[in-house]
Amino acid sequence: QGTRDHPPAQAALRDRLLSAVVACFKRHGAAAIDTPVLELRETLMGKYGEDTKLIYELQDQGGELLALRYDLTVPFARYLAMNKVTNMKRYHIAKVYRRDNPATTRGRYREFYQCDFDIAGQFDPMIPDAECLKIVHEILSDLQLGDFVIKVNDRRILNGVFAVCGVPESKFIPACSTVDKLDKVPWEEVRSEMVGEKGLSPEAADRIGEYVQLHGGLDLIERLLQDPKLSQNKLAKEGLGDMKLLFEYLTLFGITGKISFDLSLARGLDYYTGVIFEAVLLHQENEHVEEPVSVGSVAGGGRYDGLVGMFDPKGRKVPCVGVSIGIERIFSILEQRLKASGEKLRTTETQVLVATPQKHLLPARLKLISELWDAGIKAEMLYKKDPKLLKQLQYCEDTGIPLAAIVGEQELADGVVKLRDVPTREEVRM
Amino acid sequence: QGTRDHPPAQAALRDRLLSAVVACFKRHGAAAIDTPVLELRETLMGKYGEDTKLIYELQDQGGELLALRYDLTVPFARYLAMNKVTNMKRYHIAKVYRRDNPATTRGRYREFYQCDFDIAGQFDPMIPDAECLKIVHEILSDLQLGDFVIKVNDRRILNGVFAVCGVPESKFIPACSTVDKLDKVPWEEVRSEMVGEKGLSPEAADRIGEYVQLHGGLDLIERLLQDPKLSQNKLAKEGLGDMKLLFEYLTLFGITGKISFDLSLARGLDYYTGVIFEAVLLHQENEHVEEPVSVGSVAGGGRYDGLVGMFDPKGRKVPCVGVSIGIERIFSILEQRLKASGEKLRTTETQVLVATPQKHLLPARLKLISELWDAGIKAEMLYKKDPKLLKQLQYCEDTGIPLAAIVGEQELADGVVKLRDVPTREEVRM
Repeated sequence: QGTRDHPPAQAALRDRLLSAVVACFKRHGAAAIDTPVLELRETLMGKYGEDTKLIYELQDQGGELLALRYDLTVPFARYLAMNKVTNMKRYHIAKVYRRDNPATTRGRYREFYQCDFDIAGQFDPMIPDAECLKIVHEILSDLQLGDFVIKVNDRRILNGVFAVCGVPESKFIPACSTVDKLDKVPWEEVRSEMVGEKGLSPEAADRIGEYVQLHGGLDLIERLLQDPKLSQNKLAKEGLGDMKLLFEYLTLFGITGKISFDLSLARGLDYYTGVIFEAVLLHQENEHVEEPVSVGSVAGGGRYDGLVGMFDPKGRKVPCVGVSIGIERIFSILEQRLKASGEKLRTTETQVLVATPQKHLLPARLKLISELWDAGIKAEMLYKKDPKLLKQLQYCEDTGIPLAAIVGEQELADGVVKLRDVPTREEVRM
Repeated sequence: QGTRDHPPAQAALRDRLLSAVVACFKRHGAAAIDTPVLELRETLMGKYGEDTKLIYELQDQGGELLALRYDLTVPFARYLAMNKVTNMKRYHIAKVYRRDNPATTRGRYREFYQCDFDIAGQFDPMIPDAECLKIVHEILSDLQLGDFVIKVNDRRILNGVFAVCGVPESKFIPACSTVDKLDKVPWEEVRSEMVGEKGLSPEAADRIGEYVQLHGGLDLIERLLQDPKLSQNKLAKEGLGDMKLLFEYLTLFGITGKISFDLSLARGLDYYTGVIFEAVLLHQENEHVEEPVSVGSVAGGGRYDGLVGMFDPKGRKVPCVGVSIGIERIFSILEQRLKASGEKLRTTETQVLVATPQKHLLPARLKLISELWDAGIKAEMLYKKDPKLLKQLQYCEDTGIPLAAIVGEQELADGVVKLRDVPTREEVRM
């Protein structure tokens, strides 16, 4: 349940999509790493907040207690700590596992691919963070998914907001996960969860509401830097200062047009410590709508400076920032688009079919195809001793093979091959 | 235990190796499919003989009983039956899981990659089987692993041998798995296991011994076709007839030089029904040794005409033949060879480092690198505001980046970039 086979047409589309993502990651100088699907259970525990219950555990088989990885970020942090790596730019594309309620129509599965790019190391502020946003911008533009916006916020700003609104520090994380729902439900519902479930005072909730409904650009950052309450909070001030720097860098990259500083963005995971971001596609069906409607997140990430230290025996920290591309949702969109266009994706790359027009010519086919393979040419033949020529040409049409190399008795006698262009039916002897 | 991380240097080597294998599979017109790592336990049970105990099971989490896949063949057969596919040429490269005693120095892990190519469908005899052997020959030749031999046998011939030697049919499978050890232990040990553990009569064992120690080519096939006992056995006769046909096709492919018809080859798995084969690398250190010594299997496969039917509610059969490339052992060999050669594999593909020679030029670097990325050029920069030029050039040397694009105050004023060839130190302004 919640898993699926990928038949050839889907595998080919996925391959095309992943190639575009990998090309971008390599363009930014990332190296690949690979980690096991299995991790020790203790590695995964306490990293995912409320979602820890979604981890798949293996049966106790008399050895170590194992679980299937939940994401690629925690294994990356474990890898850095275990190998004492303090500086690395890596990408990793692999499957992760979540014992969630699958919603397959919306592209949510129990087994799915993640495509992660992360930069680990102690660097000058916001330079790697800006690159992560540039990567999201490049990939979403390359894939021509339509209009999108990348929302940006900072955990330090959010925590500063909570602090100045009178939330006790012990309730920052629950408050955060409630704010995170603002992209799906209206403020009124978020407020009542804060006051009810999370036990915040109504006054605190109202004050939070004034902040987290704000979004804008450099102007908003400047305004909040002047905000009488926020500007007194050390964390918020730091976060806003870095946010300003980030916008400077993004201006140099020429991508601020798609960036929105959005105080409602919170992200669910515990481990973020600084900048957080999320890219959403915008509805374009109704061009008259003033405020474009989001159709869901297709990339997300942020800074997590404390995670690696959790795996180091001496708690040595390695600051990290990274992005995960929501490949499954993008795949669903591209698949629907392909279906709508009627375009048929080839599932093989065969260049030529080796064919014979008469009986008893299997040896000639085997000899010729062997020569073609040895010369690096992608070639197929039908696995029949004496197939009809029509069947062979039909196979080319069905599978999109552009050429047929035909050897008949006459060609054998003349020492030539007849090469047929399948779509135009033109033939040359060679 | 028995799993490992692949750091960038290993991931890059693996990538290169897998690319060569995929290129061969595509050359033969195969399409890719993907199946989940998780399978229902019942799918895997009863397919792997004695090795069933090595299957990794997931904890019962109140839903389906799941296990990690043990190979890619059973999931392929399940896929064909589930989707009623009767005709397909596919490849699949993915990780499989075995709760075995790891022997990591010999490249045996609990999590490892398999690279499978299979042809499913009802075709004229031995044409797809011959192609599988051609593929093994191409891959091992391409990778320049040194001399190798591909041993070929047929389960029908083996069963025929057992029958004419007086083994009851119920003991064919145990006898088969004992014969399979002949490549590791001498005949005397195999014989005593047959008589002791497997309960065969000493006479039967001796008669089997006369057959299974034979190996050769077309001449041996002809001799056995004339064998007074074997030629009376229907199964053996069928197997030998097909073996002759296979050798005809392999002669047309020009690869019989590396093929050995070897009656000791049995292969452990239950599901094989016809041709079986295994490729082994030969020791070349001592050129004077008469009979080259095998250093282990690097590819194997065979025909399994009954497996798909086990998953079909009506038992409809889809004949299949396939090959699995032992990528982990090949990877170990290439890794050792790379280490011995001292060659350093680049882990990234970065073409140019964007550098600045003075302070306060971060904006210029960010602008230039952004232009390069947008133009599809693989570019990096150091994540420091004011790095020293020497450090930047050192980074190029360390990571193999061939070019540095330098923008200093003068270049900015002149509207040019200084492009430096890192190895030769030549510079041009452009």
